[in-house]
Amino acid sequence: MSDTTITRLRLNALRSLLAEQGMAAAIINTGDPHLSEYIADHWKFREWLSGFTGSAGTLVVGLDWAGLWTDSRYHLQAAQQLEGTGIELYKEGVTNTPDIATVLCEKLERNSKVATDAQLFSVKAYADLESKLKSGNIELYHNSDIYSVWSNRPALPNKPIFVHEFKYAGETAAEKLAKIRTYTKSKGATACLVSGLDEIAWILNLRGSDIAYNPVFYAYLAIFANNGKAFLYANNNEIGRCLTSDPAIIDHLAECNVDLKDYDSLIYDINASKQKWCYDLEHTNAFVDWLLCTSRMAGTTPTMQLKAVKNDTQINGLRQAQLADGVAMTQAFCWLDKQLEKSELVSELSFANHLDLCRSQQKDFFSLSFNTISAFAQHGAIVHYSVTPETDAALEKGNFLLVDSGGNYLNGTTDITRTVCLGGNASEQQRHDYTLVLKGHIALATTPFPESTTGAQLDSLARQFLWKDGKNYGHGTGHGIGHFLCVHEGPHRISTRSNNIPLLPGMFISNEPGLYIEDQYGIRLENMVRVKDCYINNFGKFFELETMSFFPYDASAIDASMLTDEELNWLNVYHETTYELLSGTGLLNAEELGWLRNKTKQIIRQ
Amino acid sequence: MSDTTITRLRLNALRSLLAEQGMAAAIINTGDPHLSEYIADHWKFREWLSGFTGSAGTLVVGLDWAGLWTDSRYHLQAAQQLEGTGIELYKEGVTNTPDIATVLCEKLERNSKVATDAQLFSVKAYADLESKLKSGNIELYHNSDIYSVWSNRPALPNKPIFVHEFKYAGETAAEKLAKIRTYTKSKGATACLVSGLDEIAWILNLRGSDIAYNPVFYAYLAIFANNGKAFLYANNNEIGRCLTSDPAIIDHLAECNVDLKDYDSLIYDINASKQKWCYDLEHTNAFVDWLLCTSRMAGTTPTMQLKAVKNDTQINGLRQAQLADGVAMTQAFCWLDKQLEKSELVSELSFANHLDLCRSQQKDFFSLSFNTISAFAQHGAIVHYSVTPETDAALEKGNFLLVDSGGNYLNGTTDITRTVCLGGNASEQQRHDYTLVLKGHIALATTPFPESTTGAQLDSLARQFLWKDGKNYGHGTGHGIGHFLCVHEGPHRISTRSNNIPLLPGMFISNEPGLYIEDQYGIRLENMVRVKDCYINNFGKFFELETMSFFPYDASAIDASMLTDEELNWLNVYHETTYELLSGTGLLNAEELGWLRNKTKQIIRQ
Repeated sequence: MSDTTITRLRLNALRSLLAEQGMAAAIINTGDPHLSEYIADHWKFREWLSGFTGSAGTLVVGLDWAGLWTDSRYHLQAAQQLEGTGIELYKEGVTNTPDIATVLCEKLERNSKVATDAQLFSVKAYADLESKLKSGNIELYHNSDIYSVWSNRPALPNKPIFVHEFKYAGETAAEKLAKIRTYTKSKGATACLVSGLDEIAWILNLRGSDIAYNPVFYAYLAIFANNGKAFLYANNNEIGRCLTSDPAIIDHLAECNVDLKDYDSLIYDINASKQKWCYDLEHTNAFVDWLLCTSRMAGTTPTMQLKAVKNDTQINGLRQAQLADGVAMTQAFCWLDKQLEKSELVSELSFANHLDLCRSQQKDFFSLSFNTISAFAQHGAIVHYSVTPETDAALEKGNFLLVDSGGNYLNGTTDITRTVCLGGNASEQQRHDYTLVLKGHIALATTPFPESTTGAQLDSLARQFLWKDGKNYGHGTGHGIGHFLCVHEGPHRISTRSNNIPLLPGMFISNEPGLYIEDQYGIRLENMVRVKDCYINNFGKFFELETMSFFPYDASAIDASMLTDEELNWLNVYHETTYELLSGTGLLNAEELGWLRNKTKQIIRQ
Repeated sequence: MSDTTITRLRLNALRSLLAEQGMAAAIINTGDPHLSEYIADHWKFREWLSGFTGSAGTLVVGLDWAGLWTDSRYHLQAAQQLEGTGIELYKEGVTNTPDIATVLCEKLERNSKVATDAQLFSVKAYADLESKLKSGNIELYHNSDIYSVWSNRPALPNKPIFVHEFKYAGETAAEKLAKIRTYTKSKGATACLVSGLDEIAWILNLRGSDIAYNPVFYAYLAIFANNGKAFLYANNNEIGRCLTSDPAIIDHLAECNVDLKDYDSLIYDINASKQKWCYDLEHTNAFVDWLLCTSRMAGTTPTMQLKAVKNDTQINGLRQAQLADGVAMTQAFCWLDKQLEKSELVSELSFANHLDLCRSQQKDFFSLSFNTISAFAQHGAIVHYSVTPETDAALEKGNFLLVDSGGNYLNGTTDITRTVCLGGNASEQQRHDYTLVLKGHIALATTPFPESTTGAQLDSLARQFLWKDGKNYGHGTGHGIGHFLCVHEGPHRISTRSNNIPLLPGMFISNEPGLYIEDQYGIRLENMVRVKDCYINNFGKFFELETMSFFPYDASAIDASMLTDEELNWLNVYHETTYELLSGTGLLNAEELGWLRNKTKQIIRQ
């Protein structure tokens, strides 16, 4: 049976169910009940139904039609994968593409009912959709029966869970629970419900691998303010993990007075509970919110903020992880140069694999923190490019290779991007563009800012040199980063989007301006930085961003005449520090040390 | 009778009234029903009752006590003026100062009633106060009877109103009314109520002088969407102005089909109206909102935005006004230098008076756009310093004079600040500080930015050099400016405060970074700029800020070694342009031309 036929059969199974239940359509979006960035297969119903494998998109299935909405990253892929399925593609971001509510209001009769799983929506997204549909006289219903057509649905993940030791975390679970209890009481609530998987992992000092790249596990956490107890609702199977028979887990949970409950029992417990709940409206799904809302106290909790501000143990751990990362990068890039010198064939994919291998051999390595981006020449201009055997390009001299990669180490999560011109013979335009990006990257790394400053205010410092040249990049300048957790972590960011979260000492964030010249190349330079104290004087407190990643920039791609004395000095000090720190690890061999010495030698303005 | 005794008698008169009406207290804040920045005497009840003359503050009068809340600008003045009145001073901005609601909830019994004039509050401010009081079981009542104790209350202003000719405005009132009608209909409303005095003046191409510095008049404007009519609710007396017997006004209003109504009749008309009203929630007072709210459609109107984007006639008019302003500045500063050379005594006040005189003699001058700030040495460090005979300081060589001034001309409103080191012998520290401010000012003047950028994003460009030195300034970097209207005009601004209004071509805004060293000096450099198109390319549309003000900076206070080639070039081109434009007016005499030539000569890096 062809894939297309399978998709049509699956859609028809859902249609029969909808017709039986008096529903005119179903909306199947992409997500999980914890509003995670990456999701487990158990929640990939949209992919199973439509055959479209992209990471973002919403499928709408009517009784005699279907449509899929997805963004520009996936327009080409979706068109290919949907061909012959009868599912119409709606290209988000293209002018005149109607939104889901508009199409439903056009296609359906007044007073039609539409099914969806409210668990996969944020409170705001669900309310927006509901209100748009209501204005067209269409009613949205939470309906988890839709999954009944999903034969062979993958089980809820049950990968091992383990304790993230105090020597890495620097704060006990009991201490974190106490802070949340204090907050909960201060809000007049009696219990706090935590849905975010990275929040739960952070609070309890536990890690898992239920989701690729993110060392988390599926769970909810209910923390009671007054009796010192908490319930962890997690999948606890005989197969995979059996938490109740794991002495390390049992002891750890007992120490912080946390009882295990079955993942699915949360909703029954909530229904029966007499608590006044506080929970984070932005990180709780619409279904749970609906269950809780009669007894809810507040739209925010302190977990995101507490988690974002790292303690000294975490900061010191990250220093170690960054050195391991710099060693892996040095090994991989030295290897690449040697292969190119020998005219050995290296491709985007084979380089990525080699880099991943180097990283995986470092101390305390646990997993990659995301899928390594290895993008040569024009592929570099595709911001979300992910190399596949089909797109894999050979690496050649004379153009940019953009490599964005990172690891989850037990002592920290890393994320670093370097762009190098292979062969070292960058054109004048390439050097001009590379230096504009570098100047913005240095400006962010060297400009202190007053207390209360948000990332939205700092963003233009990184863009100003590109702007003067009529250039820009479409992504944010910096994202928060977890500590042996998700590589993208809120609540702070450096971005053109308005954001009212002040940067606080201890926060980790990336510094990653870029430039993308369509059909030619992409440039991105990314370090991890941490917010730290700088000045205290009559003008108040100032913070600054301390660069934590160490790996050389491509000196051959820098036009030093475009740098100020201050910028050039920063660069030379950075390169010298990089050599000292990485050579000091004792992990580089003589060839790698020679390569690194050469890449970090003083840059002198001609 | 002493001032103190008078204040006590006035407070007691109010207390008797409150007691009679069963009220436990009254809240008398500072404002007018149009939420104006400056207000007419008719609304200065707080000042009349308390004897405190500052421009900001809220008086609360209980049956046996009274308190006044005001911000740090007025802590000293208020303490002096309130002495002996029995009114307790609450210093806003000082840690542990309780807010009004907290004090009322402490002092009053549960279920007490508190009177206030809801007309003087924004919708949000009133709702916040009401909700805080309610949580302490205190009810807030709108009560305009409180004014009955105000003997000899100044009448509503009735200064002449005149037509702002099309040759200045560049768009007819009928055209503007048509745009607002289109918007009103698009929102499903049938009428639009405009409360902002500058909005009404702009829409109708009328000006007045009911308020100092702002060429506006007290009125409301009701625009009906479907019958092409509008009502102007304005004070129309026999004395002062008699609009109905002024042929120019009669013809003008007839042309755009606007009927005159009495100012006070608005509330009766609203009560009787069958309209669906739209109005701007941020610019409508809480009482009018309460009258309208059962029939309200939307929380915004397009007037602020339309008014902010200037047309070509306005832009060209502003160019002329700026030249007039530059001529006046040249005349005044040349005079100052001559006086200092002759060792004649010049003070802050006498210089301000001379500058005002020079400005008032320019073509199309109407009034100052605000009270001229002339602040020498340590006075310059007081951001809101306003010279009085009591504080007036003699000007001497060797320190900074900060002069912030502007005019309302028929063809535009101006605002310019220059700081000069008298005698030209700035210290190294003064030159360092001056140059840091200048670098930020130039960065904002020379950095294009993509479409959709807000002023909040640009703000750090002007602060980055100060930040690197651990310095900062406490005010915004730029405010919008009206066209022959208020010198402070929304909705856009350049500021650390978050603001989601993108800068659009045609908007006027100030570029005014500063630095204030307590007890030593203040530095501020301010030009008016306009947003204009810059690039269109693959990266989208870019705008830039074109500098519109022309008057030299103080070359003797610039450390050219701190400037990049690009900055130095901008400065020299600006000075050359300044000389060409101002000398080209033919309005400067030989001495002034010589002075200007000297002040604009090429700056060469040592």
